[in-house]
Amino acid sequence: MEKIFTIDKPLNLECKRTLYPPIHIAYETYGTLNNDKTNAILVCHALTGSACAYSENTDKKGFWDVIIGPNKAIDINKYFVISSNVLGSCYGSSGPSSINPKKNKPYALDFPIVTIKDMIDAQRLLIESLGIKKLLCVIGGSMGGMQVLQWAKTYPHMVRSAVAIATTYRHNAVQIAFNEVARQAVINDPLWMGGNYYGVDFPKYGLSIARMVGHITYLSQNSMEKKFGRNLVRDKLDFNFSVNFQVESYLHYKGEQFTQRFDANSFLYLTKAIDYFDLQQDCPSLEDALAQSINIKFLVISFSSDWLYPKEQSKRIVNALESIGADVSYKNINYDLGHDSFLLEAVEQNFIIGNFLKFL
Amino acid sequence: MEKIFTIDKPLNLECKRTLYPPIHIAYETYGTLNNDKTNAILVCHALTGSACAYSENTDKKGFWDVIIGPNKAIDINKYFVISSNVLGSCYGSSGPSSINPKKNKPYALDFPIVTIKDMIDAQRLLIESLGIKKLLCVIGGSMGGMQVLQWAKTYPHMVRSAVAIATTYRHNAVQIAFNEVARQAVINDPLWMGGNYYGVDFPKYGLSIARMVGHITYLSQNSMEKKFGRNLVRDKLDFNFSVNFQVESYLHYKGEQFTQRFDANSFLYLTKAIDYFDLQQDCPSLEDALAQSINIKFLVISFSSDWLYPKEQSKRIVNALESIGADVSYKNINYDLGHDSFLLEAVEQNFIIGNFLKFL
Repeated sequence: MEKIFTIDKPLNLECKRTLYPPIHIAYETYGTLNNDKTNAILVCHALTGSACAYSENTDKKGFWDVIIGPNKAIDINKYFVISSNVLGSCYGSSGPSSINPKKNKPYALDFPIVTIKDMIDAQRLLIESLGIKKLLCVIGGSMGGMQVLQWAKTYPHMVRSAVAIATTYRHNAVQIAFNEVARQAVINDPLWMGGNYYGVDFPKYGLSIARMVGHITYLSQNSMEKKFGRNLVRDKLDFNFSVNFQVESYLHYKGEQFTQRFDANSFLYLTKAIDYFDLQQDCPSLEDALAQSINIKFLVISFSSDWLYPKEQSKRIVNALESIGADVSYKNINYDLGHDSFLLEAVEQNFIIGNFLKFL
Repeated sequence: MEKIFTIDKPLNLECKRTLYPPIHIAYETYGTLNNDKTNAILVCHALTGSACAYSENTDKKGFWDVIIGPNKAIDINKYFVISSNVLGSCYGSSGPSSINPKKNKPYALDFPIVTIKDMIDAQRLLIESLGIKKLLCVIGGSMGGMQVLQWAKTYPHMVRSAVAIATTYRHNAVQIAFNEVARQAVINDPLWMGGNYYGVDFPKYGLSIARMVGHITYLSQNSMEKKFGRNLVRDKLDFNFSVNFQVESYLHYKGEQFTQRFDANSFLYLTKAIDYFDLQQDCPSLEDALAQSINIKFLVISFSSDWLYPKEQSKRIVNALESIGADVSYKNINYDLGHDSFLLEAVEQNFIIGNFLKFL
């Protein structure tokens, strides 16, 4: 069940601006915190995720039901699992669609730019409010993995182990490029209105196109070919600009569906946060950035078919950790569903993550 | 110098509609046709190319100056080179921005959907008008390569040799997906106005976004990383939604530049033509589709860093040609500039194509 943690003091952000209270962080917990508070696992979600990582309720779907639950890798009978919605999102945590207490209307673009570091700063306050001094594990995929790495860098004394999946230590030019195209699709939709669309309408076409381009990068060439190939929607080519191919229909559906569940401004803020993410920013090297993380036990996972966050980026993290002498395990899982594999693959992830946690 | 070939009879199209005269095909020729008319090479351009394949004038740039010219692979002192703008384009050939003779205003979406086969049907009339019975070679990259393959399938008796570069025998799901995102960016721009924007304004934001997404697919991950990495436009992060990274600035520039030179409706028509392209359509296999091409000498070239038209697609063409017993050479060129390599690589292409033509 979703709960709201309220930060009642100002939060200083990396952009040098201050977010003023009340600042809300939506979160869920699963399982029971043990007496010495040593069984807590923080789950960090990806770009458009929410605090709902797990759900026993079959009507509702947790984004990581494949690895969280009784007898799964993140066993809620053994661990106390905390999952919180990131700052800047639209699922209960403070973000551009939240009411700006100073103006009594939604922040829109008055909301300050938040970074991955800002997200985990807010998470830290939540964790401390629960009386937890050290997390048994911080785990997440994609943008969640960036939060994991940032935790390891910024609050290493609060992290026993870290699992970074399908992620990178910094966004590269291609990753930034795809996000910028998606943002421009939103920003150039006239209904975006400089971000001030709340209560009027919303930039659904722009946001849909943004999701379509994103969605292509989440899948693999192979899986798209197997799933759709050149299959048509009708029995022959239409010779017009309507939807002809099933892959087009699928993308339209995914785009449209996304506009019904996600705030366009939050999309801009969160893609900017991942573009800005650079773990080695202000450090001479990635090794230096991770130097304080030497006592954390790491697990890094990539997927063979993930071309958005290719395994080379994971390997670079592993090499940096090895060269500073940290305890790191790495697995590139052969799985065909592209970047989305981390949300879908149920066998190897359960085995590898389950064993990693068991032997902490 | 650009010339216009006018087709003065109706052209029956694959969509079962008819394009009525006057139908214009813009073309250029370089070099001199020999007496027995056996030294003609037809150059086919890519998606947004024009008839201008070569220019001695340094002010004007031919799209394939790297391999066309005196002492280059396509040596204009030896060969008679014909380059024509495709049907549906906006560079002199009939397309959606042309005047519909029946209505005395631009066709816009009244222009029928054209296919790669329709394009080469029009080219055939041009070639015949020049008194050429058999082309020494048909050559092209990307969409140009599709025209090459279609020539080999449809008019094998008119083709002595065929060079297909950085191309495919049919668009796959990912290729269609990227094009559909680009089309939706145009179509959802309110200034597109159902295609009837001529004389009013034009969908510049949509077309720019379309080009931005296309441009990412034309480059390679490596080359983008080397060229831009995380380099900033200014000396630090701006913490806003303006252009922060050089890669963003580059894409904006490329997008904007494209809107100044290309018609949005032509973009829709030509991307649709390549999405519809399937050489083995109505054939049990690719081998069957190429069965009539057995007497043509083939050269297939792919580029190591081209992830839009990956080498596997070229290899499939080569395998099909080998299995029907055709004479085919294949080279995967190691070059780092992604799909665009075919427009840029000057050394190996000149050597391989030059030798191929020399020994015909």
